[in-house]
Amino acid sequence: MKKYFILACCLCGALTMSAQTWEPLFNGKNLSGWKKLNGKAEYKVENNAIVGYTKANTPNTFLVTKKNYGDFILELEFKVDDSMNSGIQFRSESKKEYQKGRVHGYQYEIDPSDRAWSGGIYDEARRGWLYPMTKNPKAQTAFKSGEWNKVRIECLGNSIRTWLNGVPCANIWDDTTPSGFIALQVHEIYNKEDAGKSVAWRDIRICTTDVAKYVTPEAQLAPEANMIANTLSPTEKKEGWALLWDGKTTEGWRGARMNDFPKKGWAIEDGILKVNKGDGGESTNGGDIVTKRMYKNFILSVDFKITEGANSGIKYFVNPDLNKGAGSAIGCEFQILDDEKHPDAKMGIKGNRQVASLYDLIPAPKDKPFNKKEWNTATIVVKGNHVEHWMNGVKLIEYTRNNAMWNALVAYSKYRDWPNFGNAEEGHILLQDHGDEVWFKDIKIKELK
Amino acid sequence: MKKYFILACCLCGALTMSAQTWEPLFNGKNLSGWKKLNGKAEYKVENNAIVGYTKANTPNTFLVTKKNYGDFILELEFKVDDSMNSGIQFRSESKKEYQKGRVHGYQYEIDPSDRAWSGGIYDEARRGWLYPMTKNPKAQTAFKSGEWNKVRIECLGNSIRTWLNGVPCANIWDDTTPSGFIALQVHEIYNKEDAGKSVAWRDIRICTTDVAKYVTPEAQLAPEANMIANTLSPTEKKEGWALLWDGKTTEGWRGARMNDFPKKGWAIEDGILKVNKGDGGESTNGGDIVTKRMYKNFILSVDFKITEGANSGIKYFVNPDLNKGAGSAIGCEFQILDDEKHPDAKMGIKGNRQVASLYDLIPAPKDKPFNKKEWNTATIVVKGNHVEHWMNGVKLIEYTRNNAMWNALVAYSKYRDWPNFGNAEEGHILLQDHGDEVWFKDIKIKELK
Repeated sequence: MKKYFILACCLCGALTMSAQTWEPLFNGKNLSGWKKLNGKAEYKVENNAIVGYTKANTPNTFLVTKKNYGDFILELEFKVDDSMNSGIQFRSESKKEYQKGRVHGYQYEIDPSDRAWSGGIYDEARRGWLYPMTKNPKAQTAFKSGEWNKVRIECLGNSIRTWLNGVPCANIWDDTTPSGFIALQVHEIYNKEDAGKSVAWRDIRICTTDVAKYVTPEAQLAPEANMIANTLSPTEKKEGWALLWDGKTTEGWRGARMNDFPKKGWAIEDGILKVNKGDGGESTNGGDIVTKRMYKNFILSVDFKITEGANSGIKYFVNPDLNKGAGSAIGCEFQILDDEKHPDAKMGIKGNRQVASLYDLIPAPKDKPFNKKEWNTATIVVKGNHVEHWMNGVKLIEYTRNNAMWNALVAYSKYRDWPNFGNAEEGHILLQDHGDEVWFKDIKIKELK
Repeated sequence: MKKYFILACCLCGALTMSAQTWEPLFNGKNLSGWKKLNGKAEYKVENNAIVGYTKANTPNTFLVTKKNYGDFILELEFKVDDSMNSGIQFRSESKKEYQKGRVHGYQYEIDPSDRAWSGGIYDEARRGWLYPMTKNPKAQTAFKSGEWNKVRIECLGNSIRTWLNGVPCANIWDDTTPSGFIALQVHEIYNKEDAGKSVAWRDIRICTTDVAKYVTPEAQLAPEANMIANTLSPTEKKEGWALLWDGKTTEGWRGARMNDFPKKGWAIEDGILKVNKGDGGESTNGGDIVTKRMYKNFILSVDFKITEGANSGIKYFVNPDLNKGAGSAIGCEFQILDDEKHPDAKMGIKGNRQVASLYDLIPAPKDKPFNKKEWNTATIVVKGNHVEHWMNGVKLIEYTRNNAMWNALVAYSKYRDWPNFGNAEEGHILLQDHGDEVWFKDIKIKELK
């Protein structure tokens, strides 16, 4: 009896399972279903492949599917000249109202250069790099020079994931464009002698049915980057991340020296928490703000953007009641500064007041990856006495507090007279008002045990 | 055949083994074989024990064996009032020509106080503490208050070792007095109300035959202290220690800025390497001296003694060719200073120029065990980037170099302009001439892998 029951179940399973269905996007013979946009590079069909040739004096050219695709799994193969840069657009658009029809949107990067960012995601003609391969250096050896390379792109709702030759490359959570065309890029060239080089694509096929059933399980994915401001992706929630700022209200925050949020000096606009322009003084306008709660062991991630000549900072282990006089509340500071324009960059010792430094104590290295005109991500890791400062995915400094060397360093700094500086077991997190306009968003914390 | 052979061997073994022979030093009835020296405290025989009673207005009193003993194993039991201090002399002497017959020599300490140095070795009326129990803190719980405590003392050649209730306490290598009497001390008292308190000894027995056969194996001993200047004990040799100075010549050393040993400014007298008194200037008299060899990972031990107001130092990771100008050669410095009298003690930051500090970088704690008028032992431990400063057996500071925090600390100090200060993989060891008289001896190094 039991045996027959199991057999019946197996049969039922087999009957309800449908095989994954793939639709070819290229018939191997001509460019039926495709159109050319943006530039004048040439595309030919050769040996069952679409071959694009670089051309002088024309911008990026795209061979674009006539149909749009939202949720899908795309697979194809490409072979590219090592001196070229190329890419595959998806969920992309060309609209009169956006830069006169310029093709824009997600691009699967093809990058045979030494940088080796193939498989990364670039937001063409829009936000720029969403997933540079610095986020996933292990995948940077996946590209095969001079051979056919196998691409896989999975798009399902806000999840966008890429593979190169079976290796997980990028993984973003984003909601900017839910649907759009697929396109094969021939990049513009800057030297005439680069004309006539080629990139080929073949075996281009798409699955748009039951996509949720066929996407890759989470355990096999590249590290995720959540691009949706002031939200937590399902992955982040699962990993224990919490929003330290909700993107809309002042909840969870107060003035460092008051019970409420400052009445002036700060603004919340379009999901951005702004320090308003004041007179450049330290905590003289609205004043610093701090989390109502204290934190002990954590990973803190804060996106920030400066204005010309600005000064601000993210402090941690803050005791708001220590400094009864003028100035900022006392704690360790991840410095935020326009190193080129603010005079404090030249003060201090060997750059220890420049952006990403532990203010007045440990300088961040000179070759730090800071984008003065863009958003930057500050990450502060605290595991007991061990602390790290990261910026844009690169660890810049680490130190150990609560020891003789730490105390000796503090004794030389401007913190010398604050008792036991930096040695508190826990403290508030602070965003500094230094009277300059600075923007914050995506303020997230993962508490560690 | 085989069986009989084994039996025969066993019998032979039994026949050649002789039992350990013990000779009683006290007959349980009277003080026959003993005499009283030095003071006037009273000794009585009560319940098979010798009982000594404290007495006002008399110095330390000793009940002394009439016979002398050289190599021996002594065992006895004692019971002592918790408010007393007492001890057992051995290899001790009383000679007219030495302080008018004052009893002096090795003493097994009996110390019921909170200091808990029972089992340590004090050199009565001579050198003072040879083996304070800070050298072996694990043994400090061996004493039993209000009970009989079991003592064992082993003397064989230069080896002197003590036990308390079976716990190894002291272990010295010394050749000051090869033979002398044994004596039971009643300590002098400083308050009249302490008179009449008692210490009792019983079951006093000595083994003087085949001592070498019955002494305890090395593995079961307390950590050894070698008291013989500028030598290596057999244990030290086995552990990999080497003399960095032979106690007699300048071999292995040269001037920091010359190929030979300085012609002036330094002297070797009675096993002591002396910086001569100059004008107090930094390397202006004979100049610093350095080891000819460089060292990488090591434990360096140096005994030093200062004169009033003196300044000197022990440097490591020294590059003698770096400083082409005036002053001392460049390296990390274990500071030697008279903190009370030399003005540099008040300079620097929070005491980072005081004795045992890492000069101008990390201050030694204020409560360091420094004897201004005695010999002190500086110990420097280097294991790769991890470095420790010890003084007189106590670890005072430790730090890790070759990292951002180290470089940030150096950047604040007077070493800021020396390239990559303190980060060399190896370097010379230096003794500093700062124009003040300072003495060195027992300069030993154990290289680590």
